[in-house]
Amino acid sequence: MSSTTSGAYDDLLEHVTQLSYVEDAGGLLRWDQQVMMPEGGTPARSKQQSALSTLHHDLLTDDELAGYLDDLDEASLDPGQQAVVREVRREHERARKVPRDLVERISEATSEALPVWEQAREDDDFESYAPVLEELVDLRREYAQAIDPDRDPYEVLFEEFEPYLGLDTAERVLEELRAELPDLIDAVAESDVTQPRPFDGSYDVDDQEELVRAALDELGFDWDRGRLDTSAHPFTSGTQFDARITTRFDPEKPLDSLSSTIHEFGHATYALGLPDDEYGTPLGEARDLTVHESQSRLWENHVGRSRAFWEFFLPTVEEHFGVETTPEAAYGAANRVYDDNLIRVEADELTYHMHILVRFEIERDLIAGDLDVDEVPSVWNDRMEEYLGIRPDTDAEGCLQDIHWTNGTFGYFPTYSLGSVLAAQLYDAADGEIGPIEEGIRAGEFDDLRTWMTENVHSHGRRYTTDDLVREATGEDYTAEYFIEYVTEKYGDLYDL
Amino acid sequence: MSSTTSGAYDDLLEHVTQLSYVEDAGGLLRWDQQVMMPEGGTPARSKQQSALSTLHHDLLTDDELAGYLDDLDEASLDPGQQAVVREVRREHERARKVPRDLVERISEATSEALPVWEQAREDDDFESYAPVLEELVDLRREYAQAIDPDRDPYEVLFEEFEPYLGLDTAERVLEELRAELPDLIDAVAESDVTQPRPFDGSYDVDDQEELVRAALDELGFDWDRGRLDTSAHPFTSGTQFDARITTRFDPEKPLDSLSSTIHEFGHATYALGLPDDEYGTPLGEARDLTVHESQSRLWENHVGRSRAFWEFFLPTVEEHFGVETTPEAAYGAANRVYDDNLIRVEADELTYHMHILVRFEIERDLIAGDLDVDEVPSVWNDRMEEYLGIRPDTDAEGCLQDIHWTNGTFGYFPTYSLGSVLAAQLYDAADGEIGPIEEGIRAGEFDDLRTWMTENVHSHGRRYTTDDLVREATGEDYTAEYFIEYVTEKYGDLYDL
Repeated sequence: MSSTTSGAYDDLLEHVTQLSYVEDAGGLLRWDQQVMMPEGGTPARSKQQSALSTLHHDLLTDDELAGYLDDLDEASLDPGQQAVVREVRREHERARKVPRDLVERISEATSEALPVWEQAREDDDFESYAPVLEELVDLRREYAQAIDPDRDPYEVLFEEFEPYLGLDTAERVLEELRAELPDLIDAVAESDVTQPRPFDGSYDVDDQEELVRAALDELGFDWDRGRLDTSAHPFTSGTQFDARITTRFDPEKPLDSLSSTIHEFGHATYALGLPDDEYGTPLGEARDLTVHESQSRLWENHVGRSRAFWEFFLPTVEEHFGVETTPEAAYGAANRVYDDNLIRVEADELTYHMHILVRFEIERDLIAGDLDVDEVPSVWNDRMEEYLGIRPDTDAEGCLQDIHWTNGTFGYFPTYSLGSVLAAQLYDAADGEIGPIEEGIRAGEFDDLRTWMTENVHSHGRRYTTDDLVREATGEDYTAEYFIEYVTEKYGDLYDL
Repeated sequence: MSSTTSGAYDDLLEHVTQLSYVEDAGGLLRWDQQVMMPEGGTPARSKQQSALSTLHHDLLTDDELAGYLDDLDEASLDPGQQAVVREVRREHERARKVPRDLVERISEATSEALPVWEQAREDDDFESYAPVLEELVDLRREYAQAIDPDRDPYEVLFEEFEPYLGLDTAERVLEELRAELPDLIDAVAESDVTQPRPFDGSYDVDDQEELVRAALDELGFDWDRGRLDTSAHPFTSGTQFDARITTRFDPEKPLDSLSSTIHEFGHATYALGLPDDEYGTPLGEARDLTVHESQSRLWENHVGRSRAFWEFFLPTVEEHFGVETTPEAAYGAANRVYDDNLIRVEADELTYHMHILVRFEIERDLIAGDLDVDEVPSVWNDRMEEYLGIRPDTDAEGCLQDIHWTNGTFGYFPTYSLGSVLAAQLYDAADGEIGPIEEGIRAGEFDDLRTWMTENVHSHGRRYTTDDLVREATGEDYTAEYFIEYVTEKYGDLYDL
């Protein structure tokens, strides 16, 4: 690398790390808003957020950065540097195509949409939400067209959340799930087996919090670099130096806070596994949502909903909740398939993907202009009936339940399924190398699994594209095969199929 | 105002509010660092802070802003607009004179100084801290000279914290305190009166927290726009929409957490009293440290250490602490003058200012180059002996006790005394208009006093310079007269002088 190239690369890196620090500052403002901020703080916080977003957009799109990228166009760079330039160029080019004015209109529209959605959900009044949703759909279509007028706008939007696997892969995987899961779901519904409900009852929120903290201790959460708090919607935020988990507690649903905490723990392992010395560069950032969701699902389901985990962890649960049961009953309860569940985030590992399919098909048609906003509730209810055999009585429990569209995000939902699928593939690869993993789980030893994920996934940051990362980690192309196998075996066993 | 002027003013305002939002985002990052952040988060947080500071400096000094200010040079503006331009111009011109490189060197030096100071204080080892202090003194002298090479550098630094009262006023006031207080302190020391100590003992931290929350409830703290948390050093941070107080608890010092919380409540009233619709402009920002400290001292001392307050609040204290005493004894305990106290933040209302004088004289000589860093401990101890009749055994309890120099701030200390003096003057003015205030206090009614302060002080933001603000609020020039009168009367009564 010539010294000029090296100079341009260093300049690029300085510019990019500043960008990234500003983004992380914005992340902290969002965390605080959802976890700590008093209610009255909203007007000031919106302005602070918007100022940081504008600065970020300006830094990402400015001519200085364009110049560094030009200078590095033909440069000979090592693979890590190439990856940095690839990632920065991609984001820079996308952002540069979007007029600043449109960025601001989207930011305003989503700010204004939030209270309308909250009220509409409370009043079960889709009609009052419809104009807001229509505006957001229009704005996002405009956004996609600004980035690439010649491509399917949904594809362009999807790439915001999963830039490398391709929408065709997502569709293929979702198609496989649509082909394979309904028979399994039907078989479960027709099975004579009923899973026990040893944890039914009401549990003190303080006891639940102590329990999830004990779970994080056992799993090896690094409290020197993290926190656990509560928020209306659980999420994880932060960096390799400071990864913060939130959860929520419902006295009647003690297993939900546990599984949601373990889910977020998975996200946090990814953040904390990113290399310290690459903080602020793409090599120190997580590889988008498919991979992120693979980590949360892996810990939530393959670990936290495994028989081995309940053999290990049940005594702790019994102690905190003052119940007595068997590991087998607890395992069954944690994996019960509900035939009447309308809510995505409360779904089991099978029906979950049917919820995703409903959302995916509807948002895809909305963005394509093939579906009117007014038709969303009826199409929603029809699809729920078709895929899950249940029909919501209210839109609040139907199409109004999730916040994503209100946030202006379309194309996000598929990554939930893509991540679940990848979790199974990664678990299988890890199991082949360091397994049987369940023996470790049964003994309460989780470090080997986490270390394997750090070495094979986290530590690479964005060095590889998603598909390459999967190949590097597993030796195979991305595939749904392991997931189908996993759920077939697990639920076959649980329900005597 | 012509339409061009109006355009330039609007542009200026947009630029300035963006600046202010970035600054407030930085404020939240600092709050979080001291209150919420896990220890491991430091490296990332320092980088995020530094990125925001750099962006802020760039925005404050850029040619765009200079252009707006030029355009508005001869414009006819209304008084509020004139004030905005005056304040922005002042900060812009100061910042523009400071090389970006120097800003970064100061930021780095202060980051690096913090752990050195903490360790030195722990080990009582001034020698290891001396080189750091020397560097900070040199950097700040360079900073002052960059701003104005022809003026006393200490004066230039002082104006960072109190831009309008003038160092000559500060010196005059400190001189008055030096002339008046020692006789009073001596008389107290020689008095036969000993104040009772009804709260001696150890108090559960949870009970203390409940008590200070009860105090904030009574004082009228707006929990919808604020929080209370704990931190190593109590402080207040935030905006008119979200003002956050911190306190700390020592089981052996139950009155300290109460008075420190009431002190911070005073700061918070200022933030919360700023006009909502001026958020982000100088008219929505607090008028610097003298005025800020007047609000905290007013509530801490004139309210929280008054006889009337203890008549009202003692039952609540008794209930939380399980003690029984008389209002008079509690009042005495809250105002006990310690003849052996080495620590500024634990000092009573009289000796406090002697602590300030010691610091003021030393930092002034350091910046002038009239005192070597190595001599600080011995000069410190000599002055303490001269002014307070006590000599620290260790530097940890001496010149290493306060964090200010380590933060790179020189010229800050005098504003503590200036604020106390102003508190007495404002209290007297309010008492003349809406008094007797103590009757309200005795009845647990604090809203009138807070409203008076909001109307006469808070709501103006930076519309007036400090001296004009004092004149507007009190009808008189800034003076130490009321403070001297107040302490003479109060301690004369307490100690039978």
